[in-house]
Amino acid sequence: MIPSAMRALELRAYDGRLHLVEKPVPLPGPGQVLVRMAAAPVNPSDLKFMVGEYGLRKALPVVPGLEGSGTVVAAGSGLVARLRMGRRVACMAPEIGDGTWAEYMVAPAKRCIPLLGSVTLEQGAMMVVNPWTAWALVDTARRRGHRAAVHTAAAGALGRMMLRLGRRLNFPIVHVVRRAAQVELLRGMGAEHVLDSTAGGFDARLKELCEKLNVTVALDPVAGEMTGRVLAALPRGSLVIVYGSLSEAPCTVPPAELLYEDKRVEGFWLSRWVADRGLLALGRMALTAQKLLATEFATAVRARVGLEGVAEAIDAYKHDMTAGKVLVIPGAEEDTQ
Amino acid sequence: MIPSAMRALELRAYDGRLHLVEKPVPLPGPGQVLVRMAAAPVNPSDLKFMVGEYGLRKALPVVPGLEGSGTVVAAGSGLVARLRMGRRVACMAPEIGDGTWAEYMVAPAKRCIPLLGSVTLEQGAMMVVNPWTAWALVDTARRRGHRAAVHTAAAGALGRMMLRLGRRLNFPIVHVVRRAAQVELLRGMGAEHVLDSTAGGFDARLKELCEKLNVTVALDPVAGEMTGRVLAALPRGSLVIVYGSLSEAPCTVPPAELLYEDKRVEGFWLSRWVADRGLLALGRMALTAQKLLATEFATAVRARVGLEGVAEAIDAYKHDMTAGKVLVIPGAEEDTQ
Repeated sequence: MIPSAMRALELRAYDGRLHLVEKPVPLPGPGQVLVRMAAAPVNPSDLKFMVGEYGLRKALPVVPGLEGSGTVVAAGSGLVARLRMGRRVACMAPEIGDGTWAEYMVAPAKRCIPLLGSVTLEQGAMMVVNPWTAWALVDTARRRGHRAAVHTAAAGALGRMMLRLGRRLNFPIVHVVRRAAQVELLRGMGAEHVLDSTAGGFDARLKELCEKLNVTVALDPVAGEMTGRVLAALPRGSLVIVYGSLSEAPCTVPPAELLYEDKRVEGFWLSRWVADRGLLALGRMALTAQKLLATEFATAVRARVGLEGVAEAIDAYKHDMTAGKVLVIPGAEEDTQ
Repeated sequence: MIPSAMRALELRAYDGRLHLVEKPVPLPGPGQVLVRMAAAPVNPSDLKFMVGEYGLRKALPVVPGLEGSGTVVAAGSGLVARLRMGRRVACMAPEIGDGTWAEYMVAPAKRCIPLLGSVTLEQGAMMVVNPWTAWALVDTARRRGHRAAVHTAAAGALGRMMLRLGRRLNFPIVHVVRRAAQVELLRGMGAEHVLDSTAGGFDARLKELCEKLNVTVALDPVAGEMTGRVLAALPRGSLVIVYGSLSEAPCTVPPAELLYEDKRVEGFWLSRWVADRGLLALGRMALTAQKLLATEFATAVRARVGLEGVAEAIDAYKHDMTAGKVLVIPGAEEDTQ
């Protein structure tokens, strides 16, 4: 029984302010499905989207939320859409139109991945943005012949996934954190190489470690000063891949590192990476990601909030992104198991 | 008749201060020649070297000067060295030891290029650093499939070479200058696309022009804010090649350009480029450069000064690098013809 109206969070300007509204439940068109949303995380990319700094800007007003999970309760025409009917799925917001922070969302069927029986809707809600990014970054680094990497925001959800993935794949990672307590936390998780960027002698120790471990690539979601610091610590010919801007500052890069040391700075965006991959490769990855979702790709959750609690929870999240994800629960809580 | 002592400029610390000293004339070892220096330019890379910010630091005290010209007056053992005897040559300072700002310099014979009869010693003194860089940058851009380029310091000696080279090779270049008067100057030299970065609307006009001309690479010797500005003006997937740091500031790069626009920042250093090339390719280029030395690769000279006048001339040069090169004439003036 699908109601005609639903509650949703709406962005009316790219000012970061959310409005709780009631609006009609959308209808799935050809190739689309209607998902009754169970859960949706707040990711750093959502925060960028809300202030218009994400790679994709949508027509306003719009419901934010890039990923989530739920149950397909209606399907438009088309085989793939009809095959999804009744399935529990992880889903990505469409490139045009409303996202996951609502009781219902319409999405192209191919952006909905059926969940294995072993995966809960809560886990499935956080299956793409972070796990696929962690996978894609480590995979890209290895395919390009790098033997080890630095990660510049190691204490966050994605950082912890990289840690576990690196251990699983036997790919050494130097983990950079911003607090002494996080060093202990990551050591407790089995990390061998952890450095606190606020500690004295950080730059020299990072340089030493990069040389010792033959680290020739840095994966950097911080940007700002961090990009230049880590670039300077890497040996000649190295690469920094910037994939976020948690510092909210422009990357500062010492020209001498580019000129004389043959170093480079590039970017990574999951959407582009996905667009460059074939369906088969993506299908394989979706399966791998699900299988690792309770272990390597597990995400800590700090708070589960209804739509009315999201704005407040985001404020707390912004102050400390390493204490776990905020999970938006648009409907009834029991849906998430 | 070679004297036993000579005058030279010496750097005693990487503080940018030159000292006029008398020191023994060095003796060429195996594979080396002794060049009686006729002329040597002051390049931006020399200024970087004098403050320890160049890619190469030498043991102190040392005679600066990266390139120059002169006559080979003595040769050590080895065929190449002996073949250079008596020849007029363009010469590069050795990687270890004293440079060109002296009455005599010892250099590996293979770093001395015999000059064609049509080339004066004054022209030959400025044959490598700027002409080869201009050639290498345009060649690199074309080989990588770029159809047009932006150059961010178009009014300097190298900028003017690029302008003429671009016209010769039919490779469109958008010339960025920092003063209205320079726009006229470059237009007078036949430049079609010249923009003043201090003029209102510069960024929008640059973006428009890059799109129109299909510019996908920028050649940037300025660094600082310019790197990010030009990166932002280029279309998706573009590249900025930083090859200098005239602004003396770190490159500031908006992370969104890297992440969402698939843009990249790299460096270029002539020494590395040369090291990566075979002898045949370099020989061909040396010949081409000489043939173009009076035309495409001509350099304006603002002042010819003896060793005692270099420090003062450098101060004037630093204030306006677009008014022509300072040429150091270590010996008698008639040597430079």
